[in-house]
Amino acid sequence: MATLIHFALDPFGRRMRLALAEYGGGAELIEEQPWAPSADIFQLNPAGTLPIFMEDSSTAICGVEAIGEYLEETRSEKTKLIPGDVYERAEVRRLVGWFDTKFYAEVTEPVLTEKVIRRFLRREDGGGAPDMGRVRMAATQLRNHLDYIGHITDHRIWMAGEDLSLADLAAAAHLSVVDYFGDIPWADYPVAKSWYQRIKSRPSFRTLLADQVRGLPPSAIYPDLDF
Amino acid sequence: MATLIHFALDPFGRRMRLALAEYGGGAELIEEQPWAPSADIFQLNPAGTLPIFMEDSSTAICGVEAIGEYLEETRSEKTKLIPGDVYERAEVRRLVGWFDTKFYAEVTEPVLTEKVIRRFLRREDGGGAPDMGRVRMAATQLRNHLDYIGHITDHRIWMAGEDLSLADLAAAAHLSVVDYFGDIPWADYPVAKSWYQRIKSRPSFRTLLADQVRGLPPSAIYPDLDF
Repeated sequence: MATLIHFALDPFGRRMRLALAEYGGGAELIEEQPWAPSADIFQLNPAGTLPIFMEDSSTAICGVEAIGEYLEETRSEKTKLIPGDVYERAEVRRLVGWFDTKFYAEVTEPVLTEKVIRRFLRREDGGGAPDMGRVRMAATQLRNHLDYIGHITDHRIWMAGEDLSLADLAAAAHLSVVDYFGDIPWADYPVAKSWYQRIKSRPSFRTLLADQVRGLPPSAIYPDLDF
Repeated sequence: MATLIHFALDPFGRRMRLALAEYGGGAELIEEQPWAPSADIFQLNPAGTLPIFMEDSSTAICGVEAIGEYLEETRSEKTKLIPGDVYERAEVRRLVGWFDTKFYAEVTEPVLTEKVIRRFLRREDGGGAPDMGRVRMAATQLRNHLDYIGHITDHRIWMAGEDLSLADLAAAAHLSVVDYFGDIPWADYPVAKSWYQRIKSRPSFRTLLADQVRGLPPSAIYPDLDF
């Protein structure tokens, strides 16, 4: 069986778990701490980053875009997550890039670093109390992104068009990390909330909603489908 | 004719120019300043980033991975830049991700920001003298990357295997930005240098070697094929 080496709150691993479930498959999950990757991780991926997808014990697929495209090339017989013609596919990938680059830098990375990773690092490696300035800046940026999500899902069922795509999974994977902490002002963004409710209710989302990070329980609304 | 909106020293625009030439096509080039994108740019790409590929006046393809995959889907009839089976294609994309994420963050971005962009910004926006600490850190990281390039091209003609691929173009696009300033210690890295000589000698590279940024002439070795 295939294996995904991941960290529960990493948005890139989350997207792969969602994608695998949407394709109708799955993978054995192995948890790693991205702030302290073992020597094995560097053997599999010289960049030392997660997630890593193992098709079998000797084949490691590394790199977020590489894994996303690989899964589409090997598992999309029934369900395509990069669907449509060349323009529609480009739109899916543009939106994936938006969330993986822009949303990640502006929101997910500061939230993860300040609220999670600093708890596990030794003080000399940057551990300690969160930098609340970075957390507040992320909260401000988050509002711009919720506006944008509302703007693009206002006349569409899914983010890139008529069909669920990797764009929805990437966006939801990043948002779900912030939602774990209950930090999304959903009431102010009804259109974005409606889209998130649709994706959060899918069976593929259940695995994420069961996540618990040691010493850091999720907010009460995190697993709630009727938030 | 297609159009590429780009900045001459941006590694992502450079990769697209190389790819278009390798596919045997081309595009009209329109230069923009990424540190001061015009309102038009945000109309075409809400993220405001370059490059933007216009297939025609009404179709903008945005996002680095999206453009790379789009060009492969529309122009690779004769020349494939993401060649091979699913594993070989994953290896190409892993290496592209390595350079676009890791090399960019550790080397290209600090070099570009400190040596170019600060010259064009007003002082209140971060303009002024380069932060030489960041430049020195980038120089140190560059050596690790040259080691890695030597390691992977030691027994291969091209970076991902027997065929030239997007991995070579991504790597060369990033390195060429640093090479513009003559800042690559090629003599210490003969294997990486041999690979770079092969790619620098290709006709597709000529457009890059003719680049000149106003007020910032390239180093003498930059256009030299026998460096």
